[in-house]
Amino acid sequence: MRLAVVGGVAAGTKAASRARRVDPELDIVLYQEEPDTSISECGLPYRLSGTVGSRDSLIARTPEEFGEKGIEARVLHRVERVDHERRVLTGRNLKTGEPFEEGYDRLLISTGARAKMPPFEGSELAGVFPLRFLTDSDAILEHIREHSPGRAAVVGGGYIGLEVAENLVSLGLEVTLVESAGHVAAAYGSEVAGKIQDHLAEKGVSVHTGQRVDGFSDGGHGDGQVRSISFEGREAPAELVIVGAGIEPVVELAEEAGAEIGVTGAIRVNERMETSLPGVWAAGDNVESSHLVGGAPTWAPLGDTANQMGRVAGTNAALADGDTPLEFPGVLGTGIFKVFDLGVAKTGLLESDAAEAGFSPVSATVEAGSSAGYYPGGQEVFLKLVADKDSGRVLGAETCGAQADKMVDICATALWGRLTVADLINLDLAYAPPFGPALSPVIQAATIISGKL
Amino acid sequence: MRLAVVGGVAAGTKAASRARRVDPELDIVLYQEEPDTSISECGLPYRLSGTVGSRDSLIARTPEEFGEKGIEARVLHRVERVDHERRVLTGRNLKTGEPFEEGYDRLLISTGARAKMPPFEGSELAGVFPLRFLTDSDAILEHIREHSPGRAAVVGGGYIGLEVAENLVSLGLEVTLVESAGHVAAAYGSEVAGKIQDHLAEKGVSVHTGQRVDGFSDGGHGDGQVRSISFEGREAPAELVIVGAGIEPVVELAEEAGAEIGVTGAIRVNERMETSLPGVWAAGDNVESSHLVGGAPTWAPLGDTANQMGRVAGTNAALADGDTPLEFPGVLGTGIFKVFDLGVAKTGLLESDAAEAGFSPVSATVEAGSSAGYYPGGQEVFLKLVADKDSGRVLGAETCGAQADKMVDICATALWGRLTVADLINLDLAYAPPFGPALSPVIQAATIISGKL
Repeated sequence: MRLAVVGGVAAGTKAASRARRVDPELDIVLYQEEPDTSISECGLPYRLSGTVGSRDSLIARTPEEFGEKGIEARVLHRVERVDHERRVLTGRNLKTGEPFEEGYDRLLISTGARAKMPPFEGSELAGVFPLRFLTDSDAILEHIREHSPGRAAVVGGGYIGLEVAENLVSLGLEVTLVESAGHVAAAYGSEVAGKIQDHLAEKGVSVHTGQRVDGFSDGGHGDGQVRSISFEGREAPAELVIVGAGIEPVVELAEEAGAEIGVTGAIRVNERMETSLPGVWAAGDNVESSHLVGGAPTWAPLGDTANQMGRVAGTNAALADGDTPLEFPGVLGTGIFKVFDLGVAKTGLLESDAAEAGFSPVSATVEAGSSAGYYPGGQEVFLKLVADKDSGRVLGAETCGAQADKMVDICATALWGRLTVADLINLDLAYAPPFGPALSPVIQAATIISGKL
Repeated sequence: MRLAVVGGVAAGTKAASRARRVDPELDIVLYQEEPDTSISECGLPYRLSGTVGSRDSLIARTPEEFGEKGIEARVLHRVERVDHERRVLTGRNLKTGEPFEEGYDRLLISTGARAKMPPFEGSELAGVFPLRFLTDSDAILEHIREHSPGRAAVVGGGYIGLEVAENLVSLGLEVTLVESAGHVAAAYGSEVAGKIQDHLAEKGVSVHTGQRVDGFSDGGHGDGQVRSISFEGREAPAELVIVGAGIEPVVELAEEAGAEIGVTGAIRVNERMETSLPGVWAAGDNVESSHLVGGAPTWAPLGDTANQMGRVAGTNAALADGDTPLEFPGVLGTGIFKVFDLGVAKTGLLESDAAEAGFSPVSATVEAGSSAGYYPGGQEVFLKLVADKDSGRVLGAETCGAQADKMVDICATALWGRLTVADLINLDLAYAPPFGPALSPVIQAATIISGKL
């Protein structure tokens, strides 16, 4: 029995490892288009500044290590077509250029997501890069070594763009960030975004919101090297451009094989991570999931979620018939990032999403300290909590500042348990003066909302 | 209508403030034996070192401020007897020495807890102190100013003793800590306690566990000043001794008035914070509560819990007949403290408690980093998670190191929501490299336990 896994970053490698443990006899082949496996893509922005010093440290497990565990990892192997009726994969060995055709019994598709590259004028210039794969970071670092850029532009103020901006500033570059939406961090509310933008300004990043990028130019040098970015008729010098214009799921292989694509544009799977094709599982940034608060199909392309999905998909793909499969119930849309000294996080539905999902959202905002008022060293904690007016159920939260990771994880756990604001008011959280105020901002916010119900 | 509140620290002041908001017409009198109200007792250890510099900063609200809110706060008023049939309080004004007798309609007892002082030989020597009230810290600071002690002893390795040890070391004293149990932090398991003891040793505290204190001596000087502590035949020099031998609920007033005392020795109340006497509520360190995991009556004398109980009791004591009262469902036994650079926390039932409560506990221990492995600056996070073998329900957790506050609050929220390890495995917590490993230690521990079920 052979399990073919297509895609070897987070979900695929986790799935292969789990399948190996579930069925030691299974023949497992992992196809990976890139030269490396098990890449910690979330660490890539930090490689640019040298915060993460070694390329190898971003590789959790090499093809050789997979080999030792009895998983055949074929890197630089691009799978181009799945004939699921015949149970055959065809593709190309990118090292030799040779085509290959191989059979399988069960298939797991974990092709992930890729960076979107809008058709900006001058996108083909040297010095303009996406940052999605480890090989992208190789190319950016080589460009920096060769050209020693002094000024950089970042297109997009999502979390990747913000992390890149921080790391380029750390490297000593002057950074211009251009975002087409009205504020950076479009998934967040304007209060959190305002705090991020203030923080970016303090750190010397030149931020332009509500500005569409027109393109990039070599400044008439004719050498094909980027020199500037232009947006809404303005121009800023940039010898390096990183485009963080979002990502999209890689679904072509699954779609052509006949697997159903969901409303979000990612592959549709059930709780067992099965696609619509019998014997084909999918997991990671290429699938959609259920939102556990709103119920709608949701695309949540994140490393930790991919890992959790991979565990379920890999286990199920290796089970004998009749064994009880694992289930992945869905996501809360939890996310976090750091930009310079500011943590920013969210979970669940914010107000506008909650209204769209049919709730009657009511919210409360708390600004508190990360320690008791009298205990020195406290930093600002911002928390906005959203609940449903009718049921009191907690729907979501966004937070920034100190302890953003703690705040969001408490709220995510509360969402998972379907807790109400009445629960949160009496919740027995941990208090001592060095760790926060006597009543957590979560309890404070719930108490305010309770007064509005 | 008059509400008398006896005791004005956390629960009493919160209750009085809530009662004021619920019924603006209510006549509210707050009796407080100490000279100050609304004292942040959790901050007292930090006053010794000057980490908390100002005495006033530990007073959240003064008697005058209560007056402005329409709450009459009578400090230095000791209530000595309650005649609940007549609805009369009698006591003594400690400033004037005059007795008083005053009527009430409703009564709220928030007399808190006091430090235990075991009958050690030499307890009466100058320089031997408990640390429970703000006035205790006044006396200790005066002793330090007058006598400039170079060496101190701390009796008891509970969280107060450990916090005091840290603060005395910060002040430049040599500190000997003596604990009668087999390890410090008796409420925790031996792994966490071992880490605390290693950390204390690194910081230069001389720790003696499994040693009973015999007493204190003035070294034959006959001047009544403490010079040493003796334990199990050994002696250590100490010109200052802080006894942190535990606390006990102050229940005499309630007991003599006829209120039922629970099995823990604290006042028994229902979810509405009503005592067995109609028209008498109680809240704070003097009452017991239900444990929401084990179900047993539990005494959880902590500032945040007192605050939450005070909110419920104060609201209910001010409601008109027929209004829906608030409820305080119970506690999880959550606690946290910092000792030097180490955070230590727990929630719910640890293994031995869980077995006693009729569960079949199974546990997993995880040692992880506070950031992704490749991201610099990560510190050790230790987490032990306990679940029930039959149901998979999460029962408790203990944690120490970095992010102890985050770990314990995630677990406390999970306990409140009665989540299982299967829930935790797929829980959508927040991940980015600066904040932890891709899968939280909570998820890792749940996955290990799941494999044992």
